[in-house]
Amino acid sequence: MAKKPSIPKGTRDFNPEEVARRNYIFNTIKETFSLYGFQPIETPSFENSDTLMGKYGEEGDRLIFKILNSGDFLSKVDEKLYTEKNSIKITSRISEKALRYDLTVPFARYVVQHQNEITFPFKRYQIQPVWRADRPQKGRFREFFQCDADVVGSTSLWQEVEFVQLYDTVFSSLGLKGVTIKLNNRKILSGIAETIGAEDKLIDFTVALDKLDKIGEEGVKKEMREKGISEDALVKLQPLFSFKGSNDEKLNALKNMLAASQLGMKGVTELEFITKNINSLGLQMASLKIDVTLARGLNYYTGAIYEVAAPAEVNMGSIGGGGRYDDLTGIFGLKNMSGVGISFGLDRIYLVLEELNLFPETVSNTSQALFINFGEQESLYAMKAIKKLREAGIKAELFPDEGKMGKQMSYADKRNIPFTVLTGEKEIAANSFTLKNMKSGEQMQVQYTELEKYLGQTN
Amino acid sequence: MAKKPSIPKGTRDFNPEEVARRNYIFNTIKETFSLYGFQPIETPSFENSDTLMGKYGEEGDRLIFKILNSGDFLSKVDEKLYTEKNSIKITSRISEKALRYDLTVPFARYVVQHQNEITFPFKRYQIQPVWRADRPQKGRFREFFQCDADVVGSTSLWQEVEFVQLYDTVFSSLGLKGVTIKLNNRKILSGIAETIGAEDKLIDFTVALDKLDKIGEEGVKKEMREKGISEDALVKLQPLFSFKGSNDEKLNALKNMLAASQLGMKGVTELEFITKNINSLGLQMASLKIDVTLARGLNYYTGAIYEVAAPAEVNMGSIGGGGRYDDLTGIFGLKNMSGVGISFGLDRIYLVLEELNLFPETVSNTSQALFINFGEQESLYAMKAIKKLREAGIKAELFPDEGKMGKQMSYADKRNIPFTVLTGEKEIAANSFTLKNMKSGEQMQVQYTELEKYLGQTN
Repeated sequence: MAKKPSIPKGTRDFNPEEVARRNYIFNTIKETFSLYGFQPIETPSFENSDTLMGKYGEEGDRLIFKILNSGDFLSKVDEKLYTEKNSIKITSRISEKALRYDLTVPFARYVVQHQNEITFPFKRYQIQPVWRADRPQKGRFREFFQCDADVVGSTSLWQEVEFVQLYDTVFSSLGLKGVTIKLNNRKILSGIAETIGAEDKLIDFTVALDKLDKIGEEGVKKEMREKGISEDALVKLQPLFSFKGSNDEKLNALKNMLAASQLGMKGVTELEFITKNINSLGLQMASLKIDVTLARGLNYYTGAIYEVAAPAEVNMGSIGGGGRYDDLTGIFGLKNMSGVGISFGLDRIYLVLEELNLFPETVSNTSQALFINFGEQESLYAMKAIKKLREAGIKAELFPDEGKMGKQMSYADKRNIPFTVLTGEKEIAANSFTLKNMKSGEQMQVQYTELEKYLGQTN
Repeated sequence: MAKKPSIPKGTRDFNPEEVARRNYIFNTIKETFSLYGFQPIETPSFENSDTLMGKYGEEGDRLIFKILNSGDFLSKVDEKLYTEKNSIKITSRISEKALRYDLTVPFARYVVQHQNEITFPFKRYQIQPVWRADRPQKGRFREFFQCDADVVGSTSLWQEVEFVQLYDTVFSSLGLKGVTIKLNNRKILSGIAETIGAEDKLIDFTVALDKLDKIGEEGVKKEMREKGISEDALVKLQPLFSFKGSNDEKLNALKNMLAASQLGMKGVTELEFITKNINSLGLQMASLKIDVTLARGLNYYTGAIYEVAAPAEVNMGSIGGGGRYDDLTGIFGLKNMSGVGISFGLDRIYLVLEELNLFPETVSNTSQALFINFGEQESLYAMKAIKKLREAGIKAELFPDEGKMGKQMSYADKRNIPFTVLTGEKEIAANSFTLKNMKSGEQMQVQYTELEKYLGQTN
């Protein structure tokens, strides 16, 4: 095979530096999840097709990767169907499994399947890849990791409070200043629709409102008119277009606007609980901002809606989102299981940290010292020291082949190994080591104890 | 949907405790890899079919999971082929991608594809799931993790030495005593075949010899006779059947036996280099044992062959293996790239640690303290303390709902949370906390500083 091999479009290889940086983000998130009492679960990469199909709409069904049955899969297709040569109809006969499309449906399936083993409220997190047969484009991949935390089995608003804190803790730990956690509530949106007499147009109304940032007030009004929302309703909506000020001011404005809607006022009370307690508890680097235009997958959410915006200086859009849903597991026959959850947009967070130069230098996780190979006896002497260094938790290695010193030094350079250690005749005779700082070029001859101490300090 | 949902056969859900235990093994291995200078890469879950097909033999091709093309996949199948209704022939027309079957072929593909970016020798590790359409049975899954470390681009035997050390470090870190690292060399096997005049029957000969443990001397001889190995040859083989003693004694016996075979003697020299240097360096808990019956995928290996046996008291077979291969990347057109690598059998290691009760108790990673929910004001008081505890790295959480204390205590119990904290009126008035040890039932009223100190010590 002479052709240089490649990988499928929309997929990626990750080199050691990229893996280290991705793990830095994953580990920061995992540690925070753990501090907040969340525990990990994992589900299989593929599910039975009937677990996934029909859960993401028609478009979603199309984007799910299907796995071909093993063996003589065509033998199960009857002649009549086969003759039609219809790809859609034949799919369910030749494919019984499909790759995970998100983590939410497999989680719902998990909760229902294991309901008798689970202690509710169940605080779980899950960080696993998902696959979508989307058209690949910049920043959109066919294989990517999702990173979700959810609590199911409790309606307590303290959880909504905790998720705001959790976002703040993660982004503060990553050193990311200027993150905005935007908060809304489905009940507010329903309340507004009710107030302006457009309950039946809730979706059209919120889809248009969600675009305020992008298309401006006039654009939103134009779209609403096209969708049949009355001029009268638009007048009542007017306050939303100039919705400014502190969270308290916004809450007051909403109270005036939604006084007649019981559902709307419930939404206001919920928002108020969250903002008030977050005020008392304080945030580190992020800020919490009520945003009544926020809709995100409205059909799904029934209470709080979150979206996290990257710092204004990077042009990245949302780096996280989530909300409360009252019927996660209903699709699998388990009713009345309220849940609330959030997710992190890993690939975008990676790009933001890269752009702002926020990855710590130590992340790359390379060896601390490369021992130069001068031959068999010298190497054994080196290996004895390397063994002790590793036992002390210091990453060290021997260049495997005897050869030109220049080549070995250049290897250390290319791999960003900060120190080399020379163990020639002279060093062995003195039971010592020559330690070279690859950046400064400085060299010093030391005993093992000093070597370990020195490399340990800089490890 | 009333039917309780399930997952495809041969796949698994992992609950929080299982994930924690698996991660304990993964993390121990990763830290060791890192100490030895290995760096992680990751490759996509699916590859182009032509990258995988034809690399694992006919049986392997059958066991590879194929992904159905998106869209109207049948439109690309011409009428003539379609009419044949032949599953095997049609597969390559309706499926262009396939799930990873192991980590070795994707690694070879990675090395060839990225050869200009890689600094050789390249020490990489990779821990990712693989998929095989095998018939599921006890301990054999359709989705499982592989865990490989390889060095490519050097023929130095120090790498063989290091892999013995690496196995020893990992299993010692896991507290697993009595592990045997079995070592052989393909050149020894070739040398023996040469010596007994059965070069043309090398595979048959080694496949039979590999069964010595299972079917005994007479069984092996019977199989060899059936494969056409002469009585004369069997006589020459006799020393192998009573091959006992120390590694040095075995090396001496091999030197006598293989004196006439240049290749065989090369194998002896290689084995000797490894055992001699391991003797000088010493191992922690594992032992290294020359085993000339060891063959493992002989066609693949060209030098050292490793296999790791679990401690004798558990009936588990091999928990790791590997060896040197001289032409890993040749299948993708890059010649003369020697490599050596090992892998860890994660699922079996898990079972061994479970059977021997070697998982540390702290692995489960549950919260250190559950704060009981007495109502909104009490909860805010609790949340302020929880926030400070988390900032100090202590895992703590509030029970989200106000409710019966018994229910909340039972929740802590079920989740194995070792402490509960009570913040009622009395505690708030005294600016204090009542800390309850869930195991002993002991309670004490403390100030925040003591609370943090106490929970921190036991975290």
